[in-house]
Formats: sequence, C-alpha cells, structure tokens
Amino acid sequence: MQANYTPLSPQSFLVRNARVYPDKPAIVYGGRQTTYREFLERACRLANGLIELGITAESNVALLAPNTPAHLEANFGVHMAGGALVAVNTRLSPQEIAYIVKHSEARVMLVDAEWVPQIAPVMGAMDALEHLIVIEDEAAPEVDWPDGAVTYESFLAGASSGYPALFPENENQTIAVNYTSGTTGHPKGVMYTHRSAYINGVCDVLETSMNAHSVYLWTLPMFHCSGWCYTWGVTALGATHVCLRKPTPASIVEHILEHRVTHLCGAPIVLQMIADGAKAAGIERFEHGLKISTAAAPPSPTIIEHMIGLNAEVVHVYGLTETYGPMTVCEVQREWLDGPIHERARLMARQGVPYMLAEDLQVLDDRDRPVPADGRTMGEACMRGNIVMKGYFRDPEATEKAFRNGWFHSGDLGVMHPDGYIELKDRAKDMIMSGGENISTIEVENVLIAHPAVTDVAVVSRPDEKWGEVPVAFVTLNGADNASETELIEFCRERLAHFKAPKAVIFEELPRTSTGKVQKYLLRERLWQGHERRIN
Amino acid sequence: MQANYTPLSPQSFLVRNARVYPDKPAIVYGGRQTTYREFLERACRLANGLIELGITAESNVALLAPNTPAHLEANFGVHMAGGALVAVNTRLSPQEIAYIVKHSEARVMLVDAEWVPQIAPVMGAMDALEHLIVIEDEAAPEVDWPDGAVTYESFLAGASSGYPALFPENENQTIAVNYTSGTTGHPKGVMYTHRSAYINGVCDVLETSMNAHSVYLWTLPMFHCSGWCYTWGVTALGATHVCLRKPTPASIVEHILEHRVTHLCGAPIVLQMIADGAKAAGIERFEHGLKISTAAAPPSPTIIEHMIGLNAEVVHVYGLTETYGPMTVCEVQREWLDGPIHERARLMARQGVPYMLAEDLQVLDDRDRPVPADGRTMGEACMRGNIVMKGYFRDPEATEKAFRNGWFHSGDLGVMHPDGYIELKDRAKDMIMSGGENISTIEVENVLIAHPAVTDVAVVSRPDEKWGEVPVAFVTLNGADNASETELIEFCRERLAHFKAPKAVIFEELPRTSTGKVQKYLLRERLWQGHERRIN
Repeated sequence: MQANYTPLSPQSFLVRNARVYPDKPAIVYGGRQTTYREFLERACRLANGLIELGITAESNVALLAPNTPAHLEANFGVHMAGGALVAVNTRLSPQEIAYIVKHSEARVMLVDAEWVPQIAPVMGAMDALEHLIVIEDEAAPEVDWPDGAVTYESFLAGASSGYPALFPENENQTIAVNYTSGTTGHPKGVMYTHRSAYINGVCDVLETSMNAHSVYLWTLPMFHCSGWCYTWGVTALGATHVCLRKPTPASIVEHILEHRVTHLCGAPIVLQMIADGAKAAGIERFEHGLKISTAAAPPSPTIIEHMIGLNAEVVHVYGLTETYGPMTVCEVQREWLDGPIHERARLMARQGVPYMLAEDLQVLDDRDRPVPADGRTMGEACMRGNIVMKGYFRDPEATEKAFRNGWFHSGDLGVMHPDGYIELKDRAKDMIMSGGENISTIEVENVLIAHPAVTDVAVVSRPDEKWGEVPVAFVTLNGADNASETELIEFCRERLAHFKAPKAVIFEELPRTSTGKVQKYLLRERLWQGHERRIN
Repeated sequence: MQANYTPLSPQSFLVRNARVYPDKPAIVYGGRQTTYREFLERACRLANGLIELGITAESNVALLAPNTPAHLEANFGVHMAGGALVAVNTRLSPQEIAYIVKHSEARVMLVDAEWVPQIAPVMGAMDALEHLIVIEDEAAPEVDWPDGAVTYESFLAGASSGYPALFPENENQTIAVNYTSGTTGHPKGVMYTHRSAYINGVCDVLETSMNAHSVYLWTLPMFHCSGWCYTWGVTALGATHVCLRKPTPASIVEHILEHRVTHLCGAPIVLQMIADGAKAAGIERFEHGLKISTAAAPPSPTIIEHMIGLNAEVVHVYGLTETYGPMTVCEVQREWLDGPIHERARLMARQGVPYMLAEDLQVLDDRDRPVPADGRTMGEACMRGNIVMKGYFRDPEATEKAFRNGWFHSGDLGVMHPDGYIELKDRAKDMIMSGGENISTIEVENVLIAHPAVTDVAVVSRPDEKWGEVPVAFVTLNGADNASETELIEFCRERLAHFKAPKAVIFEELPRTSTGKVQKYLLRERLWQGHERRIN
C-alpha cells in the first residue's frame, strides 16, 4: 500500500467508523440494533462467504429485499468481496426480476423471505444463478425454501469474520449495477464506481448538513440508485441508519418520533404520507427538527407549507439512475425565505444547480451547445463530472450514445434560468408535438393541480389526425369537491395558450412506479393502441 | 473532457459557487466585500496574468502576505494558471524568506506592502525571481516599491477575466508547496496535490458541520498548510470567509460579533485571546454559537470550560504540514458529555482518530509494526492515505525516508489507547533519554501547568555527566501567585517518578512559533552549547 494514495472507496467509511464508533448503533431495525463494530463484522462475513463461492472483481451479486439491515450489509459486503451489488426493485414482476438477474449474470442471489414465492416460478430463467441465500425476517411470512437455498444468518455464521482486505486496486472498479426502471424497452444496468459512490455519498451528507449525530430513516428504497448513495454517505459520518420494512403514514411518523429522525428522502408521496401520518397521530410539530430531500416531482406549495408547519425543511433534488441518484439541488437562497410561500415554492420547484461535488450541468440544444439562459429556450439537461455513471453493463452502444460529445444526455427537457438554475419541462418522450408546437405536459399539469378539486394529474398525448397529437389529462379528484371535464378544460384555456389545453379529461387513479413517478407510458399506450408514435 | 470523470481540484468549488451564489459575499475584509462572482473573476485575472508571465504546470509562485483577500485569491488563481502556491510564513527573517523563495525556484512573487521593506535587502539572494507584485492595502504602511515591481490591482486590471480553462489534466499535479517550520536544518517544501487538497478541504467542513450559511474567521494563518485547507473547504460550501490582517483579542471578538462568525481555527493561544477579548468587551456568551478547531497543543480543562461558557464548542485536531494540516480529530463521544469537565478535557486532550476521509493512522514500533493498544507502549504516529503529502520538493531522499515501509512517519511519539484513539507524548527529538529511561516532556509539563502559579511551561533536556541527559523546566508565572524553583520541583516529585522531575527551573517568557508552538529547540540550544546531543 502507498503512504500517500488510497483508492476512493466506501469501504473506508465502514472501517473507519468501526474504529471510531464501535459501540454506537449503526443500524436500527424493529427491536434490533447493529453497532458499527457488528456492521463491519457482518459485512466481512458476507464478503468472505461470497469469496468462498467464487465471487471476484467484476462478479455481480443480485439482491431482492426491502429496506432491512441485510440490504445495508450487502451494500458493503458484496464489494468487499470485489463484486458489484445488483439490488433489484422489489415491485417488479417475476419476469422482470428474472430478466435483470439473468442479464447481470449473477451467480449468487440474496432474497428476503417474503419474495421467495415471487421468484420461485422463474428460478429456471436466471441462467447463471447457482446460489440462493434467503434472508429470514420476523416480519416476513414463513415460506418454503427452494432446494439448495441457505439462510443468510447461517451463511454469515459459516464465514470468517476477518477483514477480507480486498480493497479495490482501482477506484474505478464497479461497486454496483443499478437497473433503470425501463419505461421503454428492457431495463439497462447502470454501473457505479467505488470512486463516484464515495464522492456522491459524501456530497449527499454535505448538501443536507448531516453529521455524526444524525439519524437517517430509510423511506427511500435502497434498491433505488443504491439509496441515492445514502447507504454509503450516512455510514461515512458514523451516523445511524433506521431501517423500515414497509413505509406507511403511521410507521413513518412513529419511527421519526421514536428515533428522533433528523433526515430522510423520498418522492413527494412520502411527504404526503408524513403529513397524513402526523395528522392522524395528532402531531403538530417535530420538535427536534427534520430535513427531507425530495425528488421525482417538484414539491407543491401546499406540501412545502405543511412541512414547514411540522418543523421539517424540504430540499428539492434531481437526478437519474445514471447520475447516482440526485446530482442537482435547488439551493435555497437566503432571500427566498423572505418571500411568500407560493413564490418560494415556485423557485423551489426548479431542479436547480449542480450538487456541491457534481461538476457540470447544462441545458444543451440538439447540437450540444448551451441554450440561452433565458428561462424559455428549451433544451436537454446534460451532465458531466464524477457523478455520472461508468456506463451501461454489457451495452457499449447505449453507453456511447448517452455520452456523445462528452456529455451525459439525460433525456429530460428543460430551460436554463438567468440565475443559473435549471428547470425541467418534460421528459423528451413525454413532450407533446401538436401542430408543430411543443407542449410541456408538466406546464399543463401545473395548471390543473392548482384547481381546488384536483389532487393528482398526468397529461399525455393522444393521436390526432389534424394536429399529429393533442394533450389529454388523467385526473384524480379529491372526493369532496367536484369538477366536470368541460370545467377543467375551460380552467386551462383561461390560463394557457388554447392549443395547450387538454382535449379530453379522464377521471381515475394514476398508475405510479415504486418511486412515486406517474407511469405516463401506461396511460399513453392505452390512447395510442393501433398507432405508432414518433419522437425525436 | 470526459462525461464521467473530472480530476478532483478545488477549482471546481469556486467555479460552482460563482454560479450558485454569484452575489453572495465570498470574502469580507474591513469594509470590503468580494462576491463569489468577483472572487472567480479576480482569480481568473490573476491566473491569466501569471500565464502571460510564463507560469505553467509545475511552476512555483511565491507569496508573502497576512490573511487578506489577495491571499485567498492566490489560493485559486495560481493553480488556475497551472502553478503551485508557495505561501511563506510572514514571521520568518529576511534570510529565511530568501532561502525558501530561492529553493522553490519561484520566478514570480506576490508581497503584501507591509513586507516589502523586509525582503528588499535580500532580493538579490532569490536567484530565480523575475517579477515582484506588491499587494497594496489601506491597512499597510506606505512603502517605496523596488524597481520593476507592479501593484497587484494593476496586474489584475491588465489581465483577461475569462476562465483560463487550465483545469489540471492530472489530479495529482502539485497545487501548493508549503515549507515546514524547519526547527532543525533547512525547511523542507511539502508538496500538496489537487486531489488531496480537494479531499481534505471537504473533510475539514464535514468534521466541523459547516454549511453554506457558515461564516469562517481567518485567525489561523493562511500560510500554514494552506490554512489547513480551509481556503478550499470554505469555498466548496459557498460559505463566507472573513479575513483578519492582525488577530488580537479585541479584533477577533469584534469580528465574531459583527459578522456572526460560526467557525474558526487556531492554536490554544487563539482560544486564550478569545477568552481575554470577550472578558475585556464584557461579552458573556456568543449567542449565535461558535465552533473552534484547535491544534498544536491539547486544549486545557480551563480553556474548554471557558469556551463552553462562551457558547463555543472546541474540536481538538492534529496534523503536520505533511498531512495537509489536521488529519486526526478527537471525536467527542456522546457519553463524554455526561462526565465532569476535567474528565472530558483529559479525553479531549488526546489527538484521536483519523479524520473522516483520512484513511489510516497507527502508532508503530521501530520496525513499523503497530504497538499494543494499551495506552502505555510508546511508538511513532504514522499515517497513510489521501491526506499525506506528495513528497518533499526537490528532496527525494527525505521523501523516501519519510515514506519508508508505506507509511508516513510523523516524528511524533505517542501511544494507542484501547478505544483506538492516539495520544502524543512527545516529538521524537524532544523526548528525554535519562539513564536509559524515556521521559515524556509533555507529561512533566502537564504536571507543572496544573500548579496554580504557572501559566506557561516547556521542559527540555540538559546534558548530564551521570544520566546522559536530565529534564529542565522553563516556566512563566502568572504574576499574581508565586512559586520557587524548589517548590515546583517538589510539586513534580509528589506526582511523578522522581527521575522525571526537573533538575532545575528557569523562570522566563517562552519563545513561540507563528503557530503558537513553543520553540523548544531554542531553549535546548542554550543548555547544550558546547555539547553534542544524540537522538535515535
């Protein structure tokens, strides 16, 4: 080892804090506590067990589990064996799970007992899979083991607890492969490096002013972008992870109070759950203070106000699986705090500026030149720097395309404001081209959500003989107030150019992904049956 | 440029925050404010001007200035030209300054006007020097310019303000050369890299929980280890630097109150100045809260208590020029806060554990094996990781010696406690070998400082025919109480093994370095005249 160089790796975080805070709770789950000493020891056992199974550098190890201690342990143990963790979304169908495990070529898979029945029928489709390790949990239903499976605890017990000392020689070695949600086509495996996992983990905690006394609640799924790299960042500080198997309004609020949680992350739906849970429990204020990072959709004025009332500060961040989770933050300028809440919410609804350690973020035109910073000219949000993925696993063509001209192309469309903040207007594939005019579906949605009767909305395109395509709104009403289709269309026409107003309104619950994003492609598929939609 | 890799460099911090906080005060000095936009622009001008003078990668640029905005600007502008900053200690003699400038081969030197008369007589001894740039300052006396000198402001005005885009291709390029204080022999030039400056700058602000709203007061000299890398860390956050030309008890306290300073660094002498200044100003408490990182000597129980009373938290850190300033921190465990103040001070007096991003720190025996963690067995504090220097400038032999067996050898002697915290007992060269027994001079000093009449103390060796060497104490009394030589020796004999008690006590003011360390070598030289001292 060199005196003056160590490859950047989150392994260092766990090793350091097992020394500094050996007896401090690293992980709290139900009635169980894991100290930092035990956290390192269990990660070492997992690593040594995996090495026994032949895991080496560049081996992928699959995992299917909710936010449990084992999931956190795998975020260290797998790469301490040299391998890369493939944490699969627990809400996928058996076929989707099998596709990812097969594509990743994982020979070993860890599965929470609750998901064993899910994967049992598709075991045969996971070509490379040789070893199944079942994570038992008091809170999981009892299930039958598939033949040859071992339990996680017996696997750890059978392995050595010594530090495997397989520190990566190269900090650009792959530490995780996170599959995109794949709204179109097959999911792609986004490769993360040790170096960037380290940098973004540190950046997460810098941006949210966390420290060693912080308590982080796992409402955000850990399988999503390695938990936005908080799996590593919280560990870097020696702070405490609180795991939560099933987030509900009641369970989130209970955990916040019981553990004096200081930080958590989640889509706006999580903020809504907190508001609902607090109301149900008669909580008016979290006295100890709370900071919430939210992404996937801008937080509305209503929810920001709700959170302020509860003594919770909201941080709006944005990113993609390809950028290790969030890589932009809407830094709140001091003077915003003086303005009215609606104005603050409008400013905070923007996706913002690069994360402290994220390097560059621009809005580029179709020749990859920056658009004018006028808040109007549309372009594609593009990033470059250390918080951009290594590439897509076994897909050099898609990697090359995403990285053309030295930028990562996000596929998100937006504008650059004069103050250097970006604001997204739409996904490239959601943008509606109507009679030669661009319609930002987000713009139309923002108008409809302001209607007092509307609680949820998604605007998508429908084929149209005359205009090519036109907007249609899917709307959920609050149940108390009412609004007709004509009334809502008129509401839009009063506030928008007429061609942007939806041509029809359909009332129903919206389909959402595990991370709270509306699955517009499902809505669009229904409207486009029998037609082919062309996008740029 | 690559989409997914940017060399780690503090340049990114300034570029980012000129975008995020263009109009926010980056630097406050007297009645002047420099915004982040101006900070970047002035650093760019400095860089472009230096490029015009032929500065390229690996060129050293010398600087002699107190804690002014120009000093901060040089901490970015010089490396934005590709060069490395050699910030010289302003308290050195003209001959010492000339030695360093000559050794660094600097062709360009920036000098604060106040120091022009200092260097005028030795200009001829700085062989490579071609360009002198004088930094004028309202607070500096008026002086005559040497022939050919230009003023800093005219130099900036004549240069382009465009971003020079000389981002380092290699993150291990040298960003600064900081000369050691050279208590024995000539000072050595410690080379810092862009990568490690970035990492330690981030680590500083993580360890002290700073954020974008923090206000940092420059009591620590910026020429000391690049201001312990806070020059870069504070800038990373987009926080505010408050410059202070001449720290006095009154000026420090005034600045803390006027600017609501949240963080500062300094030797224990700075803490004493704060206590004195607050008392003189009738301040009982800094209502907004303050955090102070201190090094060079452990903070005493008295000073810790004083600071707690003022609502100031003390963080004890330790490091050397070779470790970018602090690389260990005595992390305060929660349970320490419950104990009595003396017990807390005893625990906090230890140098502690590695900084969050510092990797490894051990106490090694003379064959570079870890000593037992028993709090008793003495060894040398050794470090390895990203916060260890690149090497000594033009001195491969000294570099190789310092890095033997893959560790940086600090020359500081200490023990490893069972809880993983290190505690220094002495500098290798200060340790007294008396009749085959080691005497830690710090141990004897800790006894003497507890005597009510003693305010300052240093123990050094004196040659002795029988024992080889024996301890002698230099003591400053508080002026109010009194204590005789016999009384103090007896005080030690009651509390220590008798061979550790000083054989003589000399009453006088102690000589200190610019950073508050007692210059024991000066005291020792007096006692050893005509003798040769051998150390291991």
